[in-house]
Amino acid sequence: MAMEENKIRAANWFSALRDEIVAAFEKLEDTQGSGPFASQPAGRFELRETERDGGKGGGGLMSVMRGGRVFEKVGVNISSVHGQLGERAQMAMASRPGMAGMAEDPSFWASGISLVAHMQNPQTPAVHMNTRMFWTPHGWWFGGGADLNPCLEYTEDTASFHDALKARCDLHDAGYYPRFKEWADRYFYIPHRKRARGVGGIFYDDLNTGDWEADFAFTQDVGRAFLEAFLPVTEKRRNDGWSDADKEAQLVHRGLYAEYNLVYDRGTKFGLETGHDPDAVLMSLPPLAKWI
Amino acid sequence: MAMEENKIRAANWFSALRDEIVAAFEKLEDTQGSGPFASQPAGRFELRETERDGGKGGGGLMSVMRGGRVFEKVGVNISSVHGQLGERAQMAMASRPGMAGMAEDPSFWASGISLVAHMQNPQTPAVHMNTRMFWTPHGWWFGGGADLNPCLEYTEDTASFHDALKARCDLHDAGYYPRFKEWADRYFYIPHRKRARGVGGIFYDDLNTGDWEADFAFTQDVGRAFLEAFLPVTEKRRNDGWSDADKEAQLVHRGLYAEYNLVYDRGTKFGLETGHDPDAVLMSLPPLAKWI
Repeated sequence: MAMEENKIRAANWFSALRDEIVAAFEKLEDTQGSGPFASQPAGRFELRETERDGGKGGGGLMSVMRGGRVFEKVGVNISSVHGQLGERAQMAMASRPGMAGMAEDPSFWASGISLVAHMQNPQTPAVHMNTRMFWTPHGWWFGGGADLNPCLEYTEDTASFHDALKARCDLHDAGYYPRFKEWADRYFYIPHRKRARGVGGIFYDDLNTGDWEADFAFTQDVGRAFLEAFLPVTEKRRNDGWSDADKEAQLVHRGLYAEYNLVYDRGTKFGLETGHDPDAVLMSLPPLAKWI
Repeated sequence: MAMEENKIRAANWFSALRDEIVAAFEKLEDTQGSGPFASQPAGRFELRETERDGGKGGGGLMSVMRGGRVFEKVGVNISSVHGQLGERAQMAMASRPGMAGMAEDPSFWASGISLVAHMQNPQTPAVHMNTRMFWTPHGWWFGGGADLNPCLEYTEDTASFHDALKARCDLHDAGYYPRFKEWADRYFYIPHRKRARGVGGIFYDDLNTGDWEADFAFTQDVGRAFLEAFLPVTEKRRNDGWSDADKEAQLVHRGLYAEYNLVYDRGTKFGLETGHDPDAVLMSLPPLAKWI
């Protein structure tokens, strides 16, 4: 029963974090009172409930803001889904340490938040954040991460983004930031382009230290760290000017981002293969992208 | 020795077909003397030689026209590559009938032509064509196809495109068109969107009737049929007007096309996994695409 309560607490946290992020992003829109795009209306999120497997497998809430003053397109999805894993996912999971039982009982429950922001001003960086709890009868774990994807790179912005993530990681385990930063460097890499998709961040998966409370507290702090890392960079850059070449660089960089998500991203593959709403799964794709 | 000569004849044909297509497309640019985009210079192909595995595994010629009067971006690639298949491709191939020998000797040679056109005018359809010959010590085969991808669909254009393909197919085998049309319907389908990517065409693979001359002649005719099917539709529509909503529909349709190519297309996966030049492999991606 304790775990049933934990699932509810996790799902409630992802929902509360969504509310906090949505409020912070709409405030960014409201405070863009001068500077680029100030003459157009402040952007607002549109909400839509999503379903998995016609609602029988759970669902979620998709929130998308389009054509704002600061955000060209940003999506914040939460979902809580459950059911039986398909054969492929089941086999993959059964091969993990301690998870052989998945071969007999492939039940799962998962809850999480996922966010991707594509910005109006090429001086402000695109960003991604995701955290989730996964549960099966054979074990539970947390995973997630956040990474910054500027098309114009500023060393000091990269440093401040990483510093904010590190500060929250260090509250839990001095080994977390170095390990999860390196994991992000490996994970957010585009092999066919032989380059990183952005300037990194942190990534973690299969986190189960045996102490659910501690791992949940860390996952909550990753969500808090995201806002602390992203908001200052955006506030600092959002009134800077840009050239046509900068806008072009942004559109081409978004093409790279789309390549990564469609070819490599685990969450995208999982979503498309398990029959989740394609618009929610592909919410991460850019509003406009270019391949030259 | 006969097969060595056949390889050369196949590679020479793909090269000659490239020349014919390039000439026909530049002629379309030259004859766009009035109507949309007539005031800008006629588009011309830029050529670049490509390499696989630093040139040790063969290479090709990539031809791309950008920002023309009729074509917003069109790529025509030819390549002849050879070497040893990687473990994954080797296993997949060894499991085919008669191909068990691939497990011992994974040598391969392949030559082909690949074309994707994204158009300026949303009234004219995007199009794809590809034909190739594949050889291993254990067998050879031809494959390819062509399909039409209009964002604004006209029943009569779809019919005339299919009629031209059928006419050439019927010269070889009355069963080819129905079989290869149905194969295209299955192959050019986007499962997560539950829709076709366009209005179809033909697709074939593993074609080896035991008569190399006949199968080569058919593959040549697929190339000829492509021009006969595509040019009239483009000439008919290229001066038609369009609305902002039509242009928007074109950009969104291109997003779908990019999804298909990055998530499902076999040639794209093969190219990225075997280390071919990523710009040549991803030449098919649209110049500009939108996800709403």
